[in-house]
Amino acid sequence: MEQPKIDIRRLMERINSLGQIGRVDGPNGEWGNARLALTDADRDGRDLVMAWMRGLGMDVVVDRIGNAVGTWEGSEPGLPPVMMGSHIDTVRTGGRFDGNLGVLAGLEVVEAMQVAGVRPRRSLQVAFFTDEEGARFPPDMLGSLVYVGGLGLEEALDARDASGARLGDELERIGYAGSMPCPAASFPAAFVELHIEQGPVLEDEHITIGAVTGVQGISWTEITVTGQSAHAGTTPMRLRRDPMLVAAQIVAEARATARRMGGTQVATVGRMEVFPDLVNVVPARVTFTVDLRNTDETRLQQAEQALFAFARSMAADEHCDLTLRSLARFEPVTFDAEMVDLVESTSRSLGYSVRRMPSGAGHDAQMLARVCPTAMIFVPSINGLSHNLAEDTAPADIEAGASVLLEVVIELANR
Amino acid sequence: MEQPKIDIRRLMERINSLGQIGRVDGPNGEWGNARLALTDADRDGRDLVMAWMRGLGMDVVVDRIGNAVGTWEGSEPGLPPVMMGSHIDTVRTGGRFDGNLGVLAGLEVVEAMQVAGVRPRRSLQVAFFTDEEGARFPPDMLGSLVYVGGLGLEEALDARDASGARLGDELERIGYAGSMPCPAASFPAAFVELHIEQGPVLEDEHITIGAVTGVQGISWTEITVTGQSAHAGTTPMRLRRDPMLVAAQIVAEARATARRMGGTQVATVGRMEVFPDLVNVVPARVTFTVDLRNTDETRLQQAEQALFAFARSMAADEHCDLTLRSLARFEPVTFDAEMVDLVESTSRSLGYSVRRMPSGAGHDAQMLARVCPTAMIFVPSINGLSHNLAEDTAPADIEAGASVLLEVVIELANR
Repeated sequence: MEQPKIDIRRLMERINSLGQIGRVDGPNGEWGNARLALTDADRDGRDLVMAWMRGLGMDVVVDRIGNAVGTWEGSEPGLPPVMMGSHIDTVRTGGRFDGNLGVLAGLEVVEAMQVAGVRPRRSLQVAFFTDEEGARFPPDMLGSLVYVGGLGLEEALDARDASGARLGDELERIGYAGSMPCPAASFPAAFVELHIEQGPVLEDEHITIGAVTGVQGISWTEITVTGQSAHAGTTPMRLRRDPMLVAAQIVAEARATARRMGGTQVATVGRMEVFPDLVNVVPARVTFTVDLRNTDETRLQQAEQALFAFARSMAADEHCDLTLRSLARFEPVTFDAEMVDLVESTSRSLGYSVRRMPSGAGHDAQMLARVCPTAMIFVPSINGLSHNLAEDTAPADIEAGASVLLEVVIELANR
Repeated sequence: MEQPKIDIRRLMERINSLGQIGRVDGPNGEWGNARLALTDADRDGRDLVMAWMRGLGMDVVVDRIGNAVGTWEGSEPGLPPVMMGSHIDTVRTGGRFDGNLGVLAGLEVVEAMQVAGVRPRRSLQVAFFTDEEGARFPPDMLGSLVYVGGLGLEEALDARDASGARLGDELERIGYAGSMPCPAASFPAAFVELHIEQGPVLEDEHITIGAVTGVQGISWTEITVTGQSAHAGTTPMRLRRDPMLVAAQIVAEARATARRMGGTQVATVGRMEVFPDLVNVVPARVTFTVDLRNTDETRLQQAEQALFAFARSMAADEHCDLTLRSLARFEPVTFDAEMVDLVESTSRSLGYSVRRMPSGAGHDAQMLARVCPTAMIFVPSINGLSHNLAEDTAPADIEAGASVLLEVVIELANR
């Protein structure tokens, strides 16, 4: 029996092998993945990961929404297990780390302990959850949401993709409609998810590990401004009701709101559709989205209220109609304080620079946090890129993150 | 011999008959036309108008770009004729007055004089020019531009529509590749175009006739702002390079520029395309158009310079790249002062309220102004609408406009 140690070559090999499935090559040598949930590529990826699990002597079960959980029995198998994991589905042009890292690092933790001849008290589980990205079937984090009982199984099975295909049918088709009940009959003692940051903060601050304190609350709103379509040449400015102007004012104010509120507040206008979208026509209608996030629910509500009041006022000034439609609304999630401390102190004891930080993106961990103490470990994303073929993380950072995961899990599994 | 008089019933009947060809019905009883240039519907419309011309004893010729000119011989046929006219092609969901009114009112003027037994000294011509809208084949006003020698025939025949069809082939296909040379061998003594205003000014001011002083200069620019695509949740505001913000600032400044410059300056952002256009992604790139117009070339250049300098400055502040691409640039056109006076004084003498005004839209008349004294007569557009199935003008206003056309033409044709 020796000290278990992450083998970064073995881990990178698994990451790159899984990445061959649904591989997409970019124009400049970068490559990533298209493994949308419940496609043939997703099935092939699942098959490979399940084979690896079985190769490590893990007992693998699949539940009715397609979540897969591999279990390596501990010395006291009657105790609730410690679970690691994430997802292996990707967006249409995704990277090979997002999600996959958390699953494959979980396997590496198991293998490192096996190689070292260390068996923990509690069983270790590695899970991958169905359709985390939501890129094919809304909502995102669907599988973990069903796992914890936050969404009914039947409703989830009835989700449709853009072509009308039913999630339940696709699950059957690829052979991953399992038999384990949803929500799960029992939950783990703790859940730990290693994930790439998907943002630029760690890189910008030259910090290796993020001890994730929670997940920002998210408010997605679709704003439609309706004015009067008019000829760009013949309509004097004073007689215009221009929804494009109103939209522009709201976009600029979204930035101003985030700046004024400070803290973790972010605001993004990522989509905009203009009708009729002609050079020489004042638009009749502009529809766009506002994505607001904050770790503090009260402040998130303040941001919503301030921006939407501004929006209504600008629309009124331009004699336009304005409608707001909520597309998504999640309250902030706060991870268990002791778990955050554990990630932070473990990182320091391993000699890694570490900072506490919220997650700006949603993750399966936020669902698991409903049922057990949960932690997330972030590693830096090069150029902050994710959901992008050029998504990348330095192997040394991957090794650091997996090593923190290993130590955290050993600590949790021996309690 | 009596005083010639517009028969508004006859004129409206022709407008509504021509409108049956390529008729499009809106959801609320409004109806208009889809007669894109050189389609079967355009051919059927041409056939009908040519038949009406022949029915009035006019000699009809078609030139090589498909412009059709009907001539009713005056008492001194050796003199250069007086030409009326416009176009009969429409946009995809156009009204039944835009263009058609100028052509059919020309026929009504001829018929009114024939009924009254009045023959002018100079021959009267009624013309319809090919592809004025440019909605199928760019550029707009193509036929009249070729007619006056502003665009080479072969280049015009080589214009392609979005499906790749060649203008010359389509002209042959519908049987309107005529034999008269382009540019025309000789030009008329004067050209007068009756047209709907396509804007709200006359209606807003309760004025019946617009004596058009010229056509605004037009500057169309496509602006592309390139930043850095980034995750909406994980990217702090201070690390963003957001092209959407820059675009919004430019949209707002376009309005401010027009307001500051005053006069006839207008500014419109009618198109915007966002990439990748996802709720939770700071866009990588935003492309949009700016349409600037002024009757004064110097001031139009000032507007361009001020707005583009602002745009570059905002892009630099956000660390974004900015490129400008000119899509179209026309200098203002000023109509012959005596012709404008004639429209104005004639309107007054007929008892109609009248104001001088520029045209914000392009018209065949601006091409004819290159080769002969030219005038335009505007009548009000209900709600300022045009390029719209709901485009409409009260019959009393049509009658007023056609009556002014009649008197102006009688005056010009007897000189």
